[in-house]
Amino acid sequence: MSESITAKAAQGGIEAAVKRATQIGVPMSIAIIDSGRALVGFLRMDKALLGSIEIAQAKAFTARTVNARTSDLMPLVQPGAPFYGLEVSHRQPMVIFGGGVPITHRGEVIGAIGVSGGSAEQDVDVAEAGARFLQGLETF
Amino acid sequence: MSESITAKAAQGGIEAAVKRATQIGVPMSIAIIDSGRALVGFLRMDKALLGSIEIAQAKAFTARTVNARTSDLMPLVQPGAPFYGLEVSHRQPMVIFGGGVPITHRGEVIGAIGVSGGSAEQDVDVAEAGARFLQGLETF
Amino acid sequence: MSESITAKAAQGGIEAAVKRATQIGVPMSIAIIDSGRALVGFLRMDKALLGSIEIAQAKAFTARTVNARTSDLMPLVQPGAPFYGLEVSHRQPMVIFGGGVPITHRGEVIGAIGVSGGSAEQDVDVAEAGARFLQGLETF
Amino acid sequence: MSESITAKAAQGGIEAAVKRATQIGVPMSIAIIDSGRALVGFLRMDKALLGSIEIAQAKAFTARTVNARTSDLMPLVQPGAPFYGLEVSHRQPMVIFGGGVPITHRGEVIGAIGVSGGSAEQDVDVAEAGARFLQGLETF
Repeated sequence: MSESITAKAAQGGIEAAVKRATQIGVPMSIAIIDSGRALVGFLRMDKALLGSIEIAQAKAFTARTVNARTSDLMPLVQPGAPFYGLEVSHRQPMVIFGGGVPITHRGEVIGAIGVSGGSAEQDVDVAEAGARFLQGLETF
Repeated sequence: MSESITAKAAQGGIEAAVKRATQIGVPMSIAIIDSGRALVGFLRMDKALLGSIEIAQAKAFTARTVNARTSDLMPLVQPGAPFYGLEVSHRQPMVIFGGGVPITHRGEVIGAIGVSGGSAEQDVDVAEAGARFLQGLETF
Repeated sequence: MSESITAKAAQGGIEAAVKRATQIGVPMSIAIIDSGRALVGFLRMDKALLGSIEIAQAKAFTARTVNARTSDLMPLVQPGAPFYGLEVSHRQPMVIFGGGVPITHRGEVIGAIGVSGGSAEQDVDVAEAGARFLQGLETF
Repeated sequence: MSESITAKAAQGGIEAAVKRATQIGVPMSIAIIDSGRALVGFLRMDKALLGSIEIAQAKAFTARTVNARTSDLMPLVQPGAPFYGLEVSHRQPMVIFGGGVPITHRGEVIGAIGVSGGSAEQDVDVAEAGARFLQGLETF
């Protein structure tokens, strides 16, 4: 049977991300999607920017769509770069700033986490905390 | 100042709804929005229908948009009834079957819960469990 | 590893559907999606209605979204019925006339086929031919 | 009368593209549209990026919309260049990186192929294999 991200795993990933966001003092939204890009869990921390709701989900969507960290896309979509325009290549927004991280398990992408609310660096930091938790699980 | 629904309260409401859904043996998606209709928390239980993701959120949106239970809207939107067509009256779907319930606090609507995944009756049952939890809180 | 629908399986399912559509003399569009509702294969037969392109895909999307045949939805969405309004409950169209059929494997829904171009009965007939082929496969 | 691309021709074009993609070892999505920009055939190879589904179709759409290879558009849409912003000029995404190729027959554009899943160079390579097959056909 498919490994994908269970509700319980998503809650754990969100908790790990919230813990890190609390440590750095920045309220964030965290979204976790499964391998088919369907939402499993979402939490908006108190006082997180409203814009973080949609962007967190779009980052997770983007990371799974291209099986890459959104922060790695930034140089590729600059004027003159090979994927200039990638962010508008889908009917729903692709987000190419940091904070979307694929979740892998035994070399396969089984979902993604998207985090928004701080600077790109802070979003990456918190997304990685969530991703580390999820990738450390033996079962999903 | 207006009370709204905190991340912690949303997590508690989701937990209460999941507990009830587990009791009746139907996997569901649960969405909780604040007074401004912005998503606070979401969880899709394992094996819940994919359709429950969007419908749970749309039910919460609808309940807060009209400050009414979505199950109360059903007779009002039938052919010949006063709000025929309400479900397509917004840029995003309004859902008029049971499972969207406003959350009130001291007579004011401070958010809503939307539940999807079972029959309309089951969705209402689970949404009420979440709403009861949230309305029993002293602080949000 | 996940059972889902491979490119080869999708081509076989499309071929089986085309064969049946040819037998009944109605040109159709056939769409096959995977468990995550992502398109795997599509073919529009010569002279099929242009409208069949989008509807075939929407039927497959709908069948997997609710894990049901679209033809079973028709009575449920009538005025006065419990899921009145279901077809507009998602940001993308749900189609509630016959021709969308889930593909199951060992009791699990692993994708769906959607067919459009003829009457609802003809679309169901052809979709079933494709679904039978896919469900008869030992491996995907 | 105008020639367009038949279902059989589209299947042949997809097969030729798949053969080339297999040779270079990159799983891809291939979309073929007719002269009216309506989808005729589509196939997503196993393990192709999910993002390739929508981008392959958008590349074919773009190539026929402007009767040009998408790889030729890249310099024209850079900041300061004459078609800056072209990629968002339609209700659906235009894609301006390589992999969309018009199909011509006796000097007339009769459709287009779009390929996605690899680097821009790989996508062009595979799209050309499909286009060569289609342009070598005597009848469509």
